[in-house]
Amino acid sequence: MFMESLQNVQKKYAAFKAQGLKLDMSRGKPCSEQVALSDDLDGILKGNYLSQASEDCRNYGNPAGIAEARELCAQILEVPSSQVLVGGNSSLNLMSDTIKRAMLKGIMGNTPWCKLPKVKFLCPVPGYDRHFGLCEDAGIEMVNIPMTSGGPDMNEVERLVKSEAVKGIWCVPKYSNPDGISYSDETIKRLATLKPTAADFRIFWDNAYCVHHFDINKPDKILNIYDECAKHGNEDLVYIFASTSKVTFAGAGIAAMGASPANFKEILAATKVQTIGFDKVNQLRHARFFCNKDNILAHMEKHAQIIKPKFDLVMQILEEELADCGLASWSKPNGGYFISVFVKEGTAKRVCALCQESGVTLTGAGATYPYGDDPDDSNIRIAPTFPPLDELEISMRLFCTCVKLAYIENNNIF
Amino acid sequence: MFMESLQNVQKKYAAFKAQGLKLDMSRGKPCSEQVALSDDLDGILKGNYLSQASEDCRNYGNPAGIAEARELCAQILEVPSSQVLVGGNSSLNLMSDTIKRAMLKGIMGNTPWCKLPKVKFLCPVPGYDRHFGLCEDAGIEMVNIPMTSGGPDMNEVERLVKSEAVKGIWCVPKYSNPDGISYSDETIKRLATLKPTAADFRIFWDNAYCVHHFDINKPDKILNIYDECAKHGNEDLVYIFASTSKVTFAGAGIAAMGASPANFKEILAATKVQTIGFDKVNQLRHARFFCNKDNILAHMEKHAQIIKPKFDLVMQILEEELADCGLASWSKPNGGYFISVFVKEGTAKRVCALCQESGVTLTGAGATYPYGDDPDDSNIRIAPTFPPLDELEISMRLFCTCVKLAYIENNNIF
Repeated sequence: MFMESLQNVQKKYAAFKAQGLKLDMSRGKPCSEQVALSDDLDGILKGNYLSQASEDCRNYGNPAGIAEARELCAQILEVPSSQVLVGGNSSLNLMSDTIKRAMLKGIMGNTPWCKLPKVKFLCPVPGYDRHFGLCEDAGIEMVNIPMTSGGPDMNEVERLVKSEAVKGIWCVPKYSNPDGISYSDETIKRLATLKPTAADFRIFWDNAYCVHHFDINKPDKILNIYDECAKHGNEDLVYIFASTSKVTFAGAGIAAMGASPANFKEILAATKVQTIGFDKVNQLRHARFFCNKDNILAHMEKHAQIIKPKFDLVMQILEEELADCGLASWSKPNGGYFISVFVKEGTAKRVCALCQESGVTLTGAGATYPYGDDPDDSNIRIAPTFPPLDELEISMRLFCTCVKLAYIENNNIF
Repeated sequence: MFMESLQNVQKKYAAFKAQGLKLDMSRGKPCSEQVALSDDLDGILKGNYLSQASEDCRNYGNPAGIAEARELCAQILEVPSSQVLVGGNSSLNLMSDTIKRAMLKGIMGNTPWCKLPKVKFLCPVPGYDRHFGLCEDAGIEMVNIPMTSGGPDMNEVERLVKSEAVKGIWCVPKYSNPDGISYSDETIKRLATLKPTAADFRIFWDNAYCVHHFDINKPDKILNIYDECAKHGNEDLVYIFASTSKVTFAGAGIAAMGASPANFKEILAATKVQTIGFDKVNQLRHARFFCNKDNILAHMEKHAQIIKPKFDLVMQILEEELADCGLASWSKPNGGYFISVFVKEGTAKRVCALCQESGVTLTGAGATYPYGDDPDDSNIRIAPTFPPLDELEISMRLFCTCVKLAYIENNNIF
């Protein structure tokens, strides 16, 4: 029950505005201290550019990536390394390539999607705006799927894949963007046993936060989607993506894609047309830097030490400012990059606008929904990793004030 | 007039075969000594990952590339840096993206090519197999255009662009692959003033060998295509590509694309959908390594010192073995990566097969033509840069023997 007076909230808001803030919390970017954890990457090769197989990584070739990088990525993708393609610096670009390939060439002999009257993707919401951007750009119609505490509403998914036009679903299965939800075993089992009508339906499994735990001793654990699919003869159903963007350098990591042998064969053949090979020198840097997944996990602990206090601070402020008034609810993730706040219906856009007017840029309200359209105008994604703690505190205090102010305005409580 | 006896040639061939060679001259790859010229790239940053504009190159963002890398690439693309996109390690991938974009989205509001009954590209032949591969993969019909000593036959080009279906032409304007031809001023002026029927016709100007001179004091010079186009209000006609693949690391350089402001705007908008940004750390390495084009040119002199003797050796052997017999003619380039040999009609495939049987892999005969189909079965691409001189000598002696043997076989001179 919200009780604070309009005058009080307005006064607080005016005080923030007077500070002339200029803070950006719009994107899930690691902070400088985080990327600095990997500063030794540049120079790590010490003049030795040979892979374990003695291939010269400086030269052309090997579009699947060097063996040790494939092995490393296989450990986080959780598929055999022979089914792993290591790409450039961007898993989004691998997803984009995959969509474009399906559009232009079709998947495994099926009609290219660009030749079909309609192609639809299932989009668990709220979700990742750049996934939605790929679909929108390709003219793929997006269908909202509600998220539950265990992942996408599987009743809806199972109902909708009966349509031949439904060709895919976006999943961020662990510490989901933005809700921080990790898919339950039941959800993953139901996804892995889907029987979509379209033979070229694919799960786009963007395991972006697979090793991004706040507490290495208490990580969320999810089932291996590939194993679950394979158990049921359904291994062609899924494309799995990950990258080191939020492990080493956000702009200069390595991205990878794993899939069934048949899918992999098709992916590699297409890759060979578009490039002579991705940057193997950077793959070699990463392979030498980490060697194996255990070292990645140890590295992620250092990240957690930097960002966990930021998440804690956000939680604390939300609790202090909004817990009692009933104006918002929010996720309490065990990893990942975001906190998802649901404010009162019809006020999210106004909250973001009020923050912006006072100099704090948030991810735009609606961005977490296809076409930027949050039907409830309620969800706001908080990205706490980039700003320093003092800026984060001011921003979050302002945010909470704006949540209240927008509510008062919206309900004409004057 | 060929006079050598069958017995003599067979005897020589048998002697090569007995050596159990295993040599690969199939691709235009730099040799180890060449890529080693850039070994200082890894480690050059010495912990300073900030661009001149103080942006953190380790982090996300800036899909057009960092300013100093755009400036550097602008100097070799010869367009203003504000119209330059610096990508990942592969200019082929930039071309692939460009084709896919045109297929799926269309160029500047024109119908997406995938919605058209037929799309054609003009392909000067012989040419670069990977260009042809992009077209073939996209289902674009390729039309052979004969090369003259000054570039593509412009009468044919001017005639064919009257067709609405003709949407592009592949050009490697300097030290062309494989002929080593640099386009004449007249050719470039005629290309720049083309009036194609299709508003979305584009020249794909792959200036892959723009700084790849054998003698820096006697480089081939070609007109600036962008300036020529702009002079005639035709600046949207051309997409310009280049990379440092054969300057620094073949597999880990930086690639760039330049175009008119209107084209650039469209390219950048599409790029922002597919990636959050390319590898800016590697862009920064390159910008620090070179600073400017003069240093690139100085660096290319070191390449020339390594590869010029290889080209000289090939020339010498071709001259010694084939000049008098009239069985072949070949290019004498001033730069680039290839020598183009025309053997007697109907014998190129057999020459390559004979070489292969004796352990020397050449670029497959036909590879320099669309669909792998050399209508005369006559052209063979020699790539002398990768093998050491001793291997190159054996390979070329074997090659010349195979040219003779294939001719004798083909003409039943027994």
